[in-house]
Amino acid sequence: MRRALRWLRGAALALGYPLVIALAAGLLFVTFRLGMASLAPVPTEADPDRLQAKQEYLESIGPAPAGAPNFVVVFFDDLGWGDLSVQGNALIDTPHIDRVAGEGLRFTNFYSASPVCTPSRAAMLTGRYPPRAGVSAHVYFPDESWMGLARRAAGVGNELPRDEILLPEVLRSAGYATGMVGKWHLGGMEGHRPRDFGFDSYFGVLWSNDMTPLDLIRDDAVILADARPTGWGERDEEQPLGPGGIDQTTLTQQYTDEAIAFLESSKRADRPFFLYLAHSFPHVPHYPSREHAGESAGGRYGDVVEDLDRSTGAVLAALDRLGLAGDTLVVITSDNGADYGGSPGPLRGRKGEVLEGGQRVPAIVRWPGRVPPGAVTDAMAMNIDLFATFLALAGMALPSDREIDGRDLTPLLTAGGASPHEQLFYFPVVGALPEAVRNDGFKLLRASGDAGRDRPHLTRLGADAESHDLRAKHPGVAAELEAALAAKRAEFESNPRGWR
Amino acid sequence: MRRALRWLRGAALALGYPLVIALAAGLLFVTFRLGMASLAPVPTEADPDRLQAKQEYLESIGPAPAGAPNFVVVFFDDLGWGDLSVQGNALIDTPHIDRVAGEGLRFTNFYSASPVCTPSRAAMLTGRYPPRAGVSAHVYFPDESWMGLARRAAGVGNELPRDEILLPEVLRSAGYATGMVGKWHLGGMEGHRPRDFGFDSYFGVLWSNDMTPLDLIRDDAVILADARPTGWGERDEEQPLGPGGIDQTTLTQQYTDEAIAFLESSKRADRPFFLYLAHSFPHVPHYPSREHAGESAGGRYGDVVEDLDRSTGAVLAALDRLGLAGDTLVVITSDNGADYGGSPGPLRGRKGEVLEGGQRVPAIVRWPGRVPPGAVTDAMAMNIDLFATFLALAGMALPSDREIDGRDLTPLLTAGGASPHEQLFYFPVVGALPEAVRNDGFKLLRASGDAGRDRPHLTRLGADAESHDLRAKHPGVAAELEAALAAKRAEFESNPRGWR
Repeated sequence: MRRALRWLRGAALALGYPLVIALAAGLLFVTFRLGMASLAPVPTEADPDRLQAKQEYLESIGPAPAGAPNFVVVFFDDLGWGDLSVQGNALIDTPHIDRVAGEGLRFTNFYSASPVCTPSRAAMLTGRYPPRAGVSAHVYFPDESWMGLARRAAGVGNELPRDEILLPEVLRSAGYATGMVGKWHLGGMEGHRPRDFGFDSYFGVLWSNDMTPLDLIRDDAVILADARPTGWGERDEEQPLGPGGIDQTTLTQQYTDEAIAFLESSKRADRPFFLYLAHSFPHVPHYPSREHAGESAGGRYGDVVEDLDRSTGAVLAALDRLGLAGDTLVVITSDNGADYGGSPGPLRGRKGEVLEGGQRVPAIVRWPGRVPPGAVTDAMAMNIDLFATFLALAGMALPSDREIDGRDLTPLLTAGGASPHEQLFYFPVVGALPEAVRNDGFKLLRASGDAGRDRPHLTRLGADAESHDLRAKHPGVAAELEAALAAKRAEFESNPRGWR
Repeated sequence: MRRALRWLRGAALALGYPLVIALAAGLLFVTFRLGMASLAPVPTEADPDRLQAKQEYLESIGPAPAGAPNFVVVFFDDLGWGDLSVQGNALIDTPHIDRVAGEGLRFTNFYSASPVCTPSRAAMLTGRYPPRAGVSAHVYFPDESWMGLARRAAGVGNELPRDEILLPEVLRSAGYATGMVGKWHLGGMEGHRPRDFGFDSYFGVLWSNDMTPLDLIRDDAVILADARPTGWGERDEEQPLGPGGIDQTTLTQQYTDEAIAFLESSKRADRPFFLYLAHSFPHVPHYPSREHAGESAGGRYGDVVEDLDRSTGAVLAALDRLGLAGDTLVVITSDNGADYGGSPGPLRGRKGEVLEGGQRVPAIVRWPGRVPPGAVTDAMAMNIDLFATFLALAGMALPSDREIDGRDLTPLLTAGGASPHEQLFYFPVVGALPEAVRNDGFKLLRASGDAGRDRPHLTRLGADAESHDLRAKHPGVAAELEAALAAKRAEFESNPRGWR
């Protein structure tokens, strides 16, 4: 035994760590490739019939009726459930967002549709769970990066299919001015950028602020080409990639200025509008504004969040100043739960996990005169609901050729009450089938993920942080949720895109 | 590119998954072996000089003075910070332990010395950080199991060295009756069992309740040999290994009966005593007593914890009944933070991590007439402090030939006030150097563990759950803690065993 071990060790040392690492990397790649190939391939090319149906649906949309509100979605990147003072953060001060919460409705059980960026964004803009749009294998990467190349080689999709119907396309068909400012993360290929999916104007970056190349784009033109080397990107502001990229300390301010300019131009044009302000922060790397750096008791992360808070205050002040506040429904939320340096509050888990901390996010809705001020609801909702809600408020029918998973939240927003959902489903970072389900009181994880003990896990939401498995205590609830999850999995297995 | 990929995939498929897995396992083993070999080898044989010094120290101990209390340590396995109702659990009901908290002092910042079993237990019984006893590579495994064999082959230690001085050895030298009931987990080899380290009597199991073989032992004799197959053990009560082992549904009750019998015999003998009641639960697998199974709102895990609560109530009732309460200092705590199905409360992390949820544990001290009732302290302490505290209360000097890292908590227990520690250090599951340090207000992780962003992480304890890195905000604190951590690492590098 000892001799065999000595031999093994000798061999390993002789081979050297580089070879060991190379072998491991090779295995990793093969496993990745096989794993990815086991997912349904995602065509970048759209189905002509579906494109036709989409075209017909959009052409059927009439002008929005009088009284239809404007819509502003302020979307943060990786802002955790506990990152705002109104959500209980003791170090980060967010007076502007807190004030908005006091003027509107705050959700305590609002979810992103995924624990990561791309699928969450795809879901919000389509009103459908992420795999409907074929987004079921992590996030998209810049096409020139090695991960982008690997994704393309693996055929797992690196841009949103053209046959999906996006919220800005519908609102634009109804006469809305549609503006997007910020991070897209739904594809970089020509024909798959914001202006190809219904946005009249665009200013921002196509990728996460840690990915390279990270060009700054206005409408269809690159206005600042990232001259830094393309590689692993920049995850840590303490190890900057060097000059040649966007000055990220100015990014939140630039987005804010652009967002306000869009509001002003929409006001001038006297048109209803939809503004999608998708901030790049507090995703890593963390670059606070130079003006306020060091102010927050929450450190650099707190600085970045307080920049976002000031930005939100400025955008809402612009609405007030332009006399638009009463006609504008504002939603403030995040694309997934807390990541590095962020706070999930009392929730279990973080970005990337179907645990609550991965998907439960802050959400505030303000619409003076229609949404009662200072309200808090524990009714469950998800960012997929914005699509159906906005369409209902703008008097439009939903598409009929495809499943729309979101529900109209209008009654909940304006009159309180129960969630329109009996259940909500949680989709994993990689995988086209739901891994968890919740109802009003309980949540069932299909598998706890514990090595050697990977079994279903039923917990009572609100009573603990997904700690104690209650299947033995509540077998009826467990059976009901297991059946619901199995049915939803079967549904997604037989018809992943949800075509009718 | 496509062709190369196709070739790679073909090759991988031809090789087949079994070979891929075998290669991965081989690499894992080599890495494990090399990783383990990079740690200092741990001699099972003791240093004769140190053995001599130990012998002289123990011989120098005189009889305990009148008024020296009895000691009872109730030690749970994997009980999380949030698993008791007095710690905020809303589903598990622990009226007996809650009552003890009301009769004594409850710590909110008490730590196990390690985020896993063996090193925490070694540290508590020696009063020294785990690597002092050479315990710096995970936990011990049954010598017959494949992990036990691998550990022995790797030379990383699988039993406590004989030259360590253990609390029961010292107390026994002072005339205490010393009894242990429950899980040992400090070695199974002859000469390294409870009775070899100062316990007069022993009843229990040498290993965790998920390990095999798991024999039941009384004193030096196996009274129930585990007839189940030796292999991976049994992690999940829903996938039992089959008959032939201990009926774990009776284990807590058996321990309780044995503990009470020890108290009664000590009373009869009219001797001071030390009882170490080291429960096997709530470690997995979770086997509640048949009598109360299904009662807890916290499910099967809650049932197991409520069994422990009833046990604690019975042991303390026995002290009362025997008229010993006022002469007995009782400590109730856990060996590390929450694991499967357990609750870390609002803390970040779980068993196995140097985050707070991995090491901060419930701790209650009762000594009627000496420790004020109903008190709560946020002063920091660690289970290494019990050694120095008990010795001080029993009028004994500490060993002088070795570092004792723990401090005497008597002033804090009896008169309140500050922690005797300026800093506490956190040791990882594998590694002989500390990975984190805290002072009264802040905690510094040497590395956050985030891939691509693995850097130091300074947080303010109590203000958030180790979320926001505050190094940029508090550079002075960061520098102070970095220096303290570097100094402690250097100390452990140059003199791991802490010999003077």
